[in-house]
Amino acid sequence: MSDREISQAVIRRLPRYYRYLGELLENNIERISSNELSKRMQVTASQIRQDLNNFGGFGQQGYGYNVKYLYTEIGKILGLEENHNFIIVGAGNLGQALANYSAFEARGFVFKGIFDNNPILDGVSIRNIPVMMMDDIKSFIKENEVEIGVLTLPKDSAIEVAKVLVDCGIKAIWNFAHTDLDVPGDVIVENVHLSESLMRLSYNLKRSNDGYHYHK
Amino acid sequence: MSDREISQAVIRRLPRYYRYLGELLENNIERISSNELSKRMQVTASQIRQDLNNFGGFGQQGYGYNVKYLYTEIGKILGLEENHNFIIVGAGNLGQALANYSAFEARGFVFKGIFDNNPILDGVSIRNIPVMMMDDIKSFIKENEVEIGVLTLPKDSAIEVAKVLVDCGIKAIWNFAHTDLDVPGDVIVENVHLSESLMRLSYNLKRSNDGYHYHK
Repeated sequence: MSDREISQAVIRRLPRYYRYLGELLENNIERISSNELSKRMQVTASQIRQDLNNFGGFGQQGYGYNVKYLYTEIGKILGLEENHNFIIVGAGNLGQALANYSAFEARGFVFKGIFDNNPILDGVSIRNIPVMMMDDIKSFIKENEVEIGVLTLPKDSAIEVAKVLVDCGIKAIWNFAHTDLDVPGDVIVENVHLSESLMRLSYNLKRSNDGYHYHK
Repeated sequence: MSDREISQAVIRRLPRYYRYLGELLENNIERISSNELSKRMQVTASQIRQDLNNFGGFGQQGYGYNVKYLYTEIGKILGLEENHNFIIVGAGNLGQALANYSAFEARGFVFKGIFDNNPILDGVSIRNIPVMMMDDIKSFIKENEVEIGVLTLPKDSAIEVAKVLVDCGIKAIWNFAHTDLDVPGDVIVENVHLSESLMRLSYNLKRSNDGYHYHK
């Protein structure tokens, strides 16, 4: 089937299903009913059945879901069986943390290089790959078929670098900079705004301290 | 007014308003109309008016919004004028990156200490604060009035450490571990699941490569 008809709301829940199914696999659980999955995920069983029905025929009455099969199929839908080359721009603490982030490889994301404009970092090795300077980024992207750029740098530089990446034909940006990026419609941007997450925490903490009950 | 009546949807947008207003302030812009703000934020002007009306009387016909005033008021609603002590558990790359994350202090979050269970890190300094071992965490939380724990460690350890933090009376957890945490209802959990963000990127990249047009 085409995934054209799957709603964005379902798509947003898929990574969470994938994570839970992965945990079940690690624990050698081969099949699970929607009721059990419901308890673990704190989502209603009917929501789970409805979501997974989108992908057709994964569940069987009286048997439940085949964990491995469902995990594999969701992985395919999420594009995790394909390999994508990525680079990181910004070799500060966060950039280095992400360069060492093992979940990348497990999901088919292949770390090709890390760039910075600070000459002090020129040639310093991260995961056995020396930090490169920004002058080399254009040729590097082309020669290494880089599809994804991860931006871990201050917001003003992020806006500039995003333009360079777009000019080089990059397809997607994972943006950790504290700003939105203005890129053409066919370039994918996935934002991780840590500061906004921290503010949500702050807001809930304030309400809790003010005596409101916190609802997850 | 009480913020009891403000919907969760508005609350989720507040950090974004706060970020944009902060950018305007940095650029010395004193007032802005809902139309201008709308263009910058890619939210409809009527949505902006409706959201900000929740806080009563910030906008004036023919004048627009007073940027500084609105920024300050939203900051108060988000609890950013208060100070909160936090610790980080997990002194790996991500933990170290967050320890050095300057946005924390700007938002009233005060870094008190960082913990790990790897003896190699015992006493290693991060931001002039030596890494402490887990044995000391209980007494440290009590003596330093720590309200928030940041978890940057593998998921199995995260689940264990979350229990310890809850026993010590911690109020909120900023969770970077690749798992959900099962904590009592009055403990706030804000999750940053990087892996799920990466999967959303992967999904959109796959669709784009398959020839679907990407809609932000």
